[in-house]
Amino acid sequence: MKLPLGYKYSAVYAGIRKVEKDDLALILSSSPAPVAAVFTENRVQAAPVKLSKHNLDFSGGVAQAFLVNAGNANCATKTGDDVALASVKALGKLLKIPSTQVIPASTGVIGVELDGKLITEALPRLLEGASEKRFEDVARAITTTDTFPKTSSREVVLPRGTVRVAGMTKGAGMIHPRMATTLGFVLTDAAFPPSALQRILKRSVERSYNRISVDGDTSTNDMVALMANGASGVRPTPTELDAVTEAIGSVMEDLAKQIVRDGEGAKKFVTIRVEGAATEAAAVKIARSIANSPLVKTAIAGADPNWGRILSAAGNAGVEFDPATVDIFMQDVEVCRGGIAAPFSEAELIEKLNQPEISILFTFRGKNRGRSQFWTCDFTEGYIQINASYRT
Amino acid sequence: MKLPLGYKYSAVYAGIRKVEKDDLALILSSSPAPVAAVFTENRVQAAPVKLSKHNLDFSGGVAQAFLVNAGNANCATKTGDDVALASVKALGKLLKIPSTQVIPASTGVIGVELDGKLITEALPRLLEGASEKRFEDVARAITTTDTFPKTSSREVVLPRGTVRVAGMTKGAGMIHPRMATTLGFVLTDAAFPPSALQRILKRSVERSYNRISVDGDTSTNDMVALMANGASGVRPTPTELDAVTEAIGSVMEDLAKQIVRDGEGAKKFVTIRVEGAATEAAAVKIARSIANSPLVKTAIAGADPNWGRILSAAGNAGVEFDPATVDIFMQDVEVCRGGIAAPFSEAELIEKLNQPEISILFTFRGKNRGRSQFWTCDFTEGYIQINASYRT
Repeated sequence: MKLPLGYKYSAVYAGIRKVEKDDLALILSSSPAPVAAVFTENRVQAAPVKLSKHNLDFSGGVAQAFLVNAGNANCATKTGDDVALASVKALGKLLKIPSTQVIPASTGVIGVELDGKLITEALPRLLEGASEKRFEDVARAITTTDTFPKTSSREVVLPRGTVRVAGMTKGAGMIHPRMATTLGFVLTDAAFPPSALQRILKRSVERSYNRISVDGDTSTNDMVALMANGASGVRPTPTELDAVTEAIGSVMEDLAKQIVRDGEGAKKFVTIRVEGAATEAAAVKIARSIANSPLVKTAIAGADPNWGRILSAAGNAGVEFDPATVDIFMQDVEVCRGGIAAPFSEAELIEKLNQPEISILFTFRGKNRGRSQFWTCDFTEGYIQINASYRT
Repeated sequence: MKLPLGYKYSAVYAGIRKVEKDDLALILSSSPAPVAAVFTENRVQAAPVKLSKHNLDFSGGVAQAFLVNAGNANCATKTGDDVALASVKALGKLLKIPSTQVIPASTGVIGVELDGKLITEALPRLLEGASEKRFEDVARAITTTDTFPKTSSREVVLPRGTVRVAGMTKGAGMIHPRMATTLGFVLTDAAFPPSALQRILKRSVERSYNRISVDGDTSTNDMVALMANGASGVRPTPTELDAVTEAIGSVMEDLAKQIVRDGEGAKKFVTIRVEGAATEAAAVKIARSIANSPLVKTAIAGADPNWGRILSAAGNAGVEFDPATVDIFMQDVEVCRGGIAAPFSEAELIEKLNQPEISILFTFRGKNRGRSQFWTCDFTEGYIQINASYRT
């Protein structure tokens, strides 16, 4: 993995998790850098979410460090705001930077007091361990029910030099496609003005994190941030911007898909494409409704070519359409033609549905061009098992 | 069960289901009667839904018979409209009534051609078997994945006579609270003008069928109908209307709760109450969001007092609120006070959460009076097992 220049990473076990596994992590830029971020739209927002918004407001979208803990969401607790503030102040002091340039994030259980001392006392060790090579250690430290760390990177060769993009994310449940889901950190050494950064982030999130679904729930702690420290010395020209934006979007799509692949209990990765809708927004609504349907997701778990559930889920999307214009394909096999059953070999399709990669194509006849892609997973007993006992 | 006067019932096995269990049912009034009905809002509507709407439009809300089949939804099929039309025409002919006074309904798998002959050939047997006592047989015939038939009845003693209300319903999955879910038939021998009937039905559905959730999916075939044949000879006065409306509402609430109790894979029945919201609509939104959260439902399956998920689900309801004004009780134990953890004995609460009846109370401090009740079930491996192999 070719990492962007000018970033250091560190992770330690601070004693926040019950099990001994790194639970406090740092991403540090060599200089203050523009940061764009999107946050959960849940009415209940964790203390670090509120503080991160405040800090980015206050600093005008500039920061130098991300301080992340796993094992405790620091949400719905008495001392939450104090703990978050004390953490960023302590780190700011050690780094000799304004504490408003530290962006905190937390993930884990909601409603359990987080002992702030565990963090502040671990900070010196955290700083000591910082290195340009420990990217993967941070990716591992921020995981919770994830079964693997999730990272992705790209290199973009431009006439005046090379810039790099690397990202990491976490999350396997409580994933909902309406906003920045889970935690995600994307770093680049390209130089961007802050305004461009926010625009690029929003566009990329819309087509990556906002196009995935595991269980339709939205966490109190979600945040995806993009930092551009300019350490490559390359400031893309307007024409070069597209290539870098493309690389950022591609990293974020890769990260988002990894979340779905690691969906709690998931055994299958499902790509849903909708084509021929009146608008892209309509196509997204239909794809989302199919992706969120427990009946579709359980049918896929059972390798059941039950396309009627796909049609019915689409019918619930709040989009006007005539079922007679609908064709549906599962694993490239036409299962529904003009809204009714197409002739297909059930035995052959069942065999294809036993593959780990599932594709659903939902198309409208006619001249409309609205299309979207959406990614989800199947819905298995494993999801129930994981979530029935997460906390206790 | 005291059944309303002037109705006959019948059920036979017509060969629509794979297993030999009654799959064709009739509810017949002794005279044409006002009928009110609500239907699915899914864009994809089954042939019998379209035909029922047409027939009620055409007859001005008057009908004499419900013809219901299980085992096939008669939806998204080539011959669906023809089959539905042929069925009601054949029954109309045998009964010597206009076919527009027959209201068809179907439930079962989507997208498989329904052989209309199976129905028309079974109709003579169906009529022969009609009796005032076979109410339960019809309730059993319309079930699909249900583990028990669902019926409820009330008697209302008025000064000028007694009227009776009896209802039956089916459904255990694909249950969503945004509209009339599943099939439901409520019969009374009170006399009502059609306009009052539709108003009573809408109000009752809003507080019963629209307050339950099993899995957040909405079927293509949903319909709840209320028929009032006046066979008791009693036409309630405006002041008596309330008591009869109350009885109808009570029957529908009972039926709706039975659907939740029979929720696919469900082991626990969950009552969610929201109090102190700004409006009733806001209270319903919050209750629905909690009831639809897979994370809340799996936590209840696991007897996990994970109230943070309840707070987070409420935060996703699209209703503005300050978490600091929220108190939450599970099984009457305060688990969250002012948005943060309340002191409670985890061991004792876990024991209480192992009961089959679970209560969640979500209250806002302050003077607002918006409140709602909502019913749901826990989310277990059983749901996945049932739905991964429903069709094949």
